[in-house]
Amino acid sequence: MLTLFSAPGTCAFASHIALEEAGADFSLHVVDFSKQEQRSPEFLSINPKGRVPALRTDRGILTETPAILAFIGQSFPDSPVAVPGDPFEFARIQSFNAYLCSTVHVAHAHKRRGSRWSDDPAVIEALTLKVASNMSDCCALIENEMLAGPWVMGESYSIADPYLYTICGWLEGDGVDVSRFPGIADHIRRMAERPAVKRAKAAI
Amino acid sequence: MLTLFSAPGTCAFASHIALEEAGADFSLHVVDFSKQEQRSPEFLSINPKGRVPALRTDRGILTETPAILAFIGQSFPDSPVAVPGDPFEFARIQSFNAYLCSTVHVAHAHKRRGSRWSDDPAVIEALTLKVASNMSDCCALIENEMLAGPWVMGESYSIADPYLYTICGWLEGDGVDVSRFPGIADHIRRMAERPAVKRAKAAI
Repeated sequence: MLTLFSAPGTCAFASHIALEEAGADFSLHVVDFSKQEQRSPEFLSINPKGRVPALRTDRGILTETPAILAFIGQSFPDSPVAVPGDPFEFARIQSFNAYLCSTVHVAHAHKRRGSRWSDDPAVIEALTLKVASNMSDCCALIENEMLAGPWVMGESYSIADPYLYTICGWLEGDGVDVSRFPGIADHIRRMAERPAVKRAKAAI
Repeated sequence: MLTLFSAPGTCAFASHIALEEAGADFSLHVVDFSKQEQRSPEFLSINPKGRVPALRTDRGILTETPAILAFIGQSFPDSPVAVPGDPFEFARIQSFNAYLCSTVHVAHAHKRRGSRWSDDPAVIEALTLKVASNMSDCCALIENEMLAGPWVMGESYSIADPYLYTICGWLEGDGVDVSRFPGIADHIRRMAERPAVKRAKAAI
């Protein structure tokens, strides 16, 4: 039995969608960020980083979106999010997801999580100024160099798609005009139509 | 034939060590950051992100350290950096590496790459102030919660070890007192003794 620890509006939604796509038997535990539940001793015993997602499995807890997505993909080989056994094809997917976690998510985090990198309120405020242009630059790179279409990797849906879709949910709030990126806009529309995405949205 | 695009002092050193551990037939291409070669049209045609590492393979180019390390591990199953076939064990390694790329590397980057997140010189300067404490916090988490010892995953060396070692090479410059973290200090010593690490150091 799997338990996903998630919170609304976070990157944990990518793992949530993937579990739905996989047809996994899982329960959802919503961590209440408004009550700082992610900093509670109970949650820190699950994930000492104090963040979501965390996936509790029968063998232990996994954290970090690219790792959880790969685990789901390898654990459900007959599902739409199965990962390719070929090392090069798998690495291309992992490369895309690593870019999302190390660059795109980080660019976004400077809007509301600037306190991670400065204790000065004026600096934290200043860090919000470049978020829209940084996120737009990321979108341009994804649109022009990475997104094969219709899915991230081309004709095959993969664990890269729920992750991209989740991060794209932040673009409007980050001041990005998504209409400038027709491939991404089309990806968002396609994802929103998937039953697994609808189920995940309804659950959180 | 593999070609690794690297530069001294960068996270590409992790992939370099892994290729040496794997006994891979590869060539090293050093990108000259002092001449902004990473921004040249030639290099941008290899990696449009303008960063290292990039690994050129017969099938195409891979970027992002966690993806390249997993590719090397899966491609050389009889080597010390072979990755486990078990999805949970593999995910634990990927989780560690995802933490390094999305949190630890990012914390470090605020020392010299603050221009990624602000155009204001005063803000960029201010971002250097929290680097030592953030990197120390990361080390504490790694030491207390993640590093099984003697290697990251315990008795088995893995693709997590070259990556941790590479990032630990930044700690002194980031103002971290490594002696506070005996498990990490021991890991650094063990890594430095490995022939593959010595060969990689001598080559760049």
